[in-house]
Amino acid sequence: MMTSTPSASSAPSALPTQTQQWVLASRPKGMPTAENFRLETVDLPELADGQILVSNTVATVDPYMRGRMNDVKSYIPPFQIDQPLTGGAVGTVVASKSEKFAVGDAVRHSFGWQTHAVVNADEATPVDLNLAPAHAYLGILGLTGLTAYAGLTAVGEMKEGDTVFVSGAAGAVGSAVGQIAKHLGAARVIGSAGSDEKVARLLELGFDAAFNYHDGPVADSLADAAPNGIDFYFDNVGGEHLEAAIGAMNDFGRAALCGAISQYNATERPAGPKNLVLAIGKCLTLRGFVLGHYLHLAQEFQATIAPLVVSGEIKYDVTTRHGIENMPAAFLELFSGGNTGKMVVEF
Amino acid sequence: MMTSTPSASSAPSALPTQTQQWVLASRPKGMPTAENFRLETVDLPELADGQILVSNTVATVDPYMRGRMNDVKSYIPPFQIDQPLTGGAVGTVVASKSEKFAVGDAVRHSFGWQTHAVVNADEATPVDLNLAPAHAYLGILGLTGLTAYAGLTAVGEMKEGDTVFVSGAAGAVGSAVGQIAKHLGAARVIGSAGSDEKVARLLELGFDAAFNYHDGPVADSLADAAPNGIDFYFDNVGGEHLEAAIGAMNDFGRAALCGAISQYNATERPAGPKNLVLAIGKCLTLRGFVLGHYLHLAQEFQATIAPLVVSGEIKYDVTTRHGIENMPAAFLELFSGGNTGKMVVEF
Repeated sequence: MMTSTPSASSAPSALPTQTQQWVLASRPKGMPTAENFRLETVDLPELADGQILVSNTVATVDPYMRGRMNDVKSYIPPFQIDQPLTGGAVGTVVASKSEKFAVGDAVRHSFGWQTHAVVNADEATPVDLNLAPAHAYLGILGLTGLTAYAGLTAVGEMKEGDTVFVSGAAGAVGSAVGQIAKHLGAARVIGSAGSDEKVARLLELGFDAAFNYHDGPVADSLADAAPNGIDFYFDNVGGEHLEAAIGAMNDFGRAALCGAISQYNATERPAGPKNLVLAIGKCLTLRGFVLGHYLHLAQEFQATIAPLVVSGEIKYDVTTRHGIENMPAAFLELFSGGNTGKMVVEF
Repeated sequence: MMTSTPSASSAPSALPTQTQQWVLASRPKGMPTAENFRLETVDLPELADGQILVSNTVATVDPYMRGRMNDVKSYIPPFQIDQPLTGGAVGTVVASKSEKFAVGDAVRHSFGWQTHAVVNADEATPVDLNLAPAHAYLGILGLTGLTAYAGLTAVGEMKEGDTVFVSGAAGAVGSAVGQIAKHLGAARVIGSAGSDEKVARLLELGFDAAFNYHDGPVADSLADAAPNGIDFYFDNVGGEHLEAAIGAMNDFGRAALCGAISQYNATERPAGPKNLVLAIGKCLTLRGFVLGHYLHLAQEFQATIAPLVVSGEIKYDVTTRHGIENMPAAFLELFSGGNTGKMVVEF
């Protein structure tokens, strides 16, 4: 990492003094709409010692953000009305009062949903754009990839020889799950996705089987794809997918519950899996997780999986939208399947 | 154990030559009725070498037997139409062609639902009626106690300081769970049961709190009994109880799914827990189990828990019905809460 003196933040006249940022205008009921978001232009605070000013180049939208728009106690605090939305972003340091970063450095931080951000240097991570493009650090080389890895390993204890099923498999996490599972010795990897194009892409990525969940009951498609049942299920979707997976599980099957995108916008409590009682006789384990408790796996992930991404052995897709003004629309596309792989917005 | 020579089975003229046994007349739809059972008197087979003839004195009825009456693939094969029902029993050896057992020995075996049984000596276990009465070996000192122990330890990984909730707590497994949990260091143990008398009994047994689930929504009663949430749930009931437990779970809570008596007689698939999505944010683990995979814990159980039963530190209740002819009725009482503790039938 390069070092710089605070004087590197000179020439203030050339620096941005304002940021455009999205705030939560109101809490969504069911599927969010444009009215729930408001784009504001506000003055940036003065840089304090130890802070950097970052010009964001790309920011992520993720399904989990929907949960934070509700006013409920959860593993992360809810977004607050009239306060900025946050999320991962990569940008360029344009001013620095920290010795950790120089102007021109590329960093990742969690003040997305805005064009510029004042960030404590301790809360920013350097990224190497010579190794991979900026958006990769918001996806496969970032929390997305680590989510896939943690779910397969520490959470769900995938074993060599397992038949693995992942839902939402063409999404950012799902496509990483399938490929990492193969790398970890899965005998067979099956993915579900919401279009024939995505299914074709999964087969290109090395999935042994894939199906379009619009083609019929998930349980039927899964039975066709996994005639000998499944041993491991990575759940990004919930609902019908989870019920089908429980039904298809072999004895001692394991499920890592990561997401339930089918339910995030539900206005009534959705039905639970009607066949959960099968977990008794089949000795199943269902384990939910949020990544915050598994960050200690980052080093292991960097050592074992990240090099396979850089070498191209593990592939990833990105769906890019452009312009801060289009960020809510990009977010909403997550719930209608608008993305293949990671959805990001470039500014 | 005493040894005997095959000649100990002399005096055949005094021996029973027939047994009364219950066969499955037809498969129940929903709650079983008397028509699903038929009592037959059949000739006993000749004793072969290595076999013993046992006169049963007490036999167990258990909720899991309901599942075996359905013609579905499960962890144990279904009962067959016109074939004898089976289950745990304790009896006296009245003839022996095995060196392992002498006439007069008390043994436990799995050919209940009948007055007499020819048993391979290798499939019988000696029991000591000086230590505990016969029915205890069908309950707290048998598979019932081991089920409670395995669910708390290997399955659910209960920790010292956990707040533990068990449903069906006045049942044979449930009352063992609560007491063993306290012994293992649970900070607080809460039980639910179906009558005020049972609730009172749970408090006598050392439960810190107990409630009658007929008094109102389980979630409300549980919130009152566990204002700081629960860390561990031992599920014997399923349905509303499981949903309430998921709602009350603290982060990293664990559930051992042992039974779902509320659903065994359902003719339609019951609703699953509508709040299962909470397992993600709270990092919950739900693990189903059947005892057959945890029999290796028997030695540990005998060493650590059984002495506490014999000494009276861990208590157990038994509900006794009399006469082979009343065995189906005793079985059906399990589903209407007719038992406190273990339900057995004495012949």
